[in-house]
Amino acid sequence: MSIEICKESLKAISDTLYVVGGKWRLPIVFSLSFGEMRFSDLEREIPTITSRMLSKELKELEMNQIVKRKVHQTMPIKVTYSLTDHGESLKEIFDPMKAWGKKHREKIFQEG
Amino acid sequence: MSIEICKESLKAISDTLYVVGGKWRLPIVFSLSFGEMRFSDLEREIPTITSRMLSKELKELEMNQIVKRKVHQTMPIKVTYSLTDHGESLKEIFDPMKAWGKKHREKIFQEG
Repeated sequence: MSIEICKESLKAISDTLYVVGGKWRLPIVFSLSFGEMRFSDLEREIPTITSRMLSKELKELEMNQIVKRKVHQTMPIKVTYSLTDHGESLKEIFDPMKAWGKKHREKIFQEG
Repeated sequence: MSIEICKESLKAISDTLYVVGGKWRLPIVFSLSFGEMRFSDLEREIPTITSRMLSKELKELEMNQIVKRKVHQTMPIKVTYSLTDHGESLKEIFDPMKAWGKKHREKIFQEG
């Protein structure tokens, strides 16, 4: 692998880590993988998150086109959040990360 | 997916994120993927890291069995760092993360 390709790879992996990293992104994306939810549903799913932080993280995920926010013209107005197709495609990295994480835990416990 | 399987998945993915997350782990693991290196080689490869932080991160990666430290009985004594087999197996997650990160960047630039 040349230095240039290596830098390219590092950048792409860092981008991915940025999108799913931090304390809250993963629980939010996982919760939404069950279907669309309202803000209050998400607060119930992730009881330790503050409203302020949930709001901030949802905006960030929207900007990254992982989550879409929909305003329903009902009375009263209802707002829901769901994963975009791009958000759903995170499955491509979650599956291998899940497999590696399981293997890692077994390894550490076995030899630790 | 049941709630229990979901929690299990979340835990496994969080473990993986913990191992490769943060600012420095990825550059260190990437540098070592080219072969064993001395502390000073790593400092040269990652010029923005402090010695203190590099030392801390290497210890953490050793504890997680990603990196092995070898003391060579030469004169003067030489210490090298390299990836363990378990560390090499991170390739299983890096490849999909690289592919997803590239796609993500294209998407964001195209529609942003």
